[in-house]
Amino acid sequence: MAVKALGPAQLEVVQAITRALTDVDHGLLVACSGGPDSLALSVGAHQVARRTGRPLTAVIIDHGLQDGSGQVAERVHDQLSGYGLSAVEVIKVEVARDSGDGPEAAARTARYRALDEAADRLGATTILLGHTRDDQAETVLLGLARGSGTRSLAGMASRSGRLVRPLLELPRATTEQACAEAGLTPWRDPHNADPAYARVRVRDRVLPVLETELGPGIAAALARTARLARDDADLLDELAERAAAEVRTGDGLECAGTLALPAALRARVLRSWLQERGAREVSAERLAEVTRLVTDWHGQAGIDLPGVTVTRREGRLITCGRLGDRG
Amino acid sequence: MAVKALGPAQLEVVQAITRALTDVDHGLLVACSGGPDSLALSVGAHQVARRTGRPLTAVIIDHGLQDGSGQVAERVHDQLSGYGLSAVEVIKVEVARDSGDGPEAAARTARYRALDEAADRLGATTILLGHTRDDQAETVLLGLARGSGTRSLAGMASRSGRLVRPLLELPRATTEQACAEAGLTPWRDPHNADPAYARVRVRDRVLPVLETELGPGIAAALARTARLARDDADLLDELAERAAAEVRTGDGLECAGTLALPAALRARVLRSWLQERGAREVSAERLAEVTRLVTDWHGQAGIDLPGVTVTRREGRLITCGRLGDRG
Repeated sequence: MAVKALGPAQLEVVQAITRALTDVDHGLLVACSGGPDSLALSVGAHQVARRTGRPLTAVIIDHGLQDGSGQVAERVHDQLSGYGLSAVEVIKVEVARDSGDGPEAAARTARYRALDEAADRLGATTILLGHTRDDQAETVLLGLARGSGTRSLAGMASRSGRLVRPLLELPRATTEQACAEAGLTPWRDPHNADPAYARVRVRDRVLPVLETELGPGIAAALARTARLARDDADLLDELAERAAAEVRTGDGLECAGTLALPAALRARVLRSWLQERGAREVSAERLAEVTRLVTDWHGQAGIDLPGVTVTRREGRLITCGRLGDRG
Repeated sequence: MAVKALGPAQLEVVQAITRALTDVDHGLLVACSGGPDSLALSVGAHQVARRTGRPLTAVIIDHGLQDGSGQVAERVHDQLSGYGLSAVEVIKVEVARDSGDGPEAAARTARYRALDEAADRLGATTILLGHTRDDQAETVLLGLARGSGTRSLAGMASRSGRLVRPLLELPRATTEQACAEAGLTPWRDPHNADPAYARVRVRDRVLPVLETELGPGIAAALARTARLARDDADLLDELAERAAAEVRTGDGLECAGTLALPAALRARVLRSWLQERGAREVSAERLAEVTRLVTDWHGQAGIDLPGVTVTRREGRLITCGRLGDRG
């Protein structure tokens, strides 16, 4: 087929993909839902793959959760094939109905597992994902609303293992424009307009107000916050892991050593220890109570968390099965 | 005068002040604008001072920036005296008109200086400030909009030197209620309703939307984010200072050592070095360019920042007066 001239938005997408790839990213897999972000990414990846001689497979995951999802997948398949992509696969996945984390999380888990299996099977070293700067901004705001610290503000990684997100610095509007330039009409997922989802409310109601009141640079500022928070969280997690090795005594934590840690590391050491000991959903309030067993010890009673009870004994924090659970 | 029974909100304020004070906080100074937060704080501090025998002076700063500011100050003076506070002072300050940071920043600088001088003169070990959880939430959102990282999300400290903010965990509504319980009508600063101020827009337009869309816990989540970010930023700044001492060579920075630093420390070392070398307003984009002189060196030209030019020479980053400034 004839080489098409690229429009300016398409060029931006191609450049972003080129910047994101390293020499070792050879076999490429691109995940495509048919929405504007991943459609623009797939078309851009096609250009990059053709120019650099890398093998590329586009994978369309059919979660089977919405009526007509199979037809949507087929339509996306035909769009990509029609555009010139030679390897396009539709993969049907089973989404667990009873995972306990809600249908969105279950669909995401199933999707990433299927992409991983496809990459293994196809020998792909890289899985390209279409998240944009707007997705990143939404993720940061959702993390902020949880109020659980630097890691929750770190958003999505531009690279994590073989997952690569080349569009994390581009506005969603660029992907919309790139699709228009390519003559492709993206699929509009009705879930993306359903205000039952917090992410949709952030996109449609919160971010526009932030933009109006604090300036049009807000999405870029949130994405920048994510990058900086990720670097900070990575280092602090690493330091906390080393600190934990120092203050662990068997299954317990040595209080004097934990007390001597900087507050930023103490909180991380305590939280990850509690999780390892079987505590579920450690709220900030509960973590503060546990911290006071170390920083403000005056013979307090044990603290019940969902899953475990924490007590201080002979200068150590220890856990036992939650007292209330014994019946 | 007769001991008044405290209402529930007043009691919350008194308990918050009691928790915030340590044994060494003896002579107390409370800053009062006459607004609900500082009025409730002043009345609460009066209760605490009376019960614990600590000397207390309430200080009302008159910036002289609004017509009638003198009358406002006199009215607040009379309210506090009428409530039973025996030491109440009005201090007039001169606000610099040409500080370059805007009138809000100039007023704040003048106010804190006057409070500091008053504390010195009165022998006060503690200056109580009335910032609430809502002020903290606003500060975090304003920092987020700047997108300049963990420190900008750290909000205000609950204690910094002799400045103490006991109400940082209480909602503003509690201070309003405490004033009502005390029979006091707070002053309404017209600036607090002027949408020309970003803080006012955050308070009146952004936070209500966040609450509606993401839940009523948003102010608490933002305040929690501030606490966690402060601990993280404090540790990272300390580590960066130590790292900087290792990679400094005279006025320059040794590139190999800077390259070997974790990204979180490298960014801090570079930023503080640039500021020390006279760079003004180092944007994220410019800092990224300077970082590439270290992480992605391929003989780039020097980088012009406002105030200074950075170049790499013989494995070191060095600065010279900005090339463009030489004319």
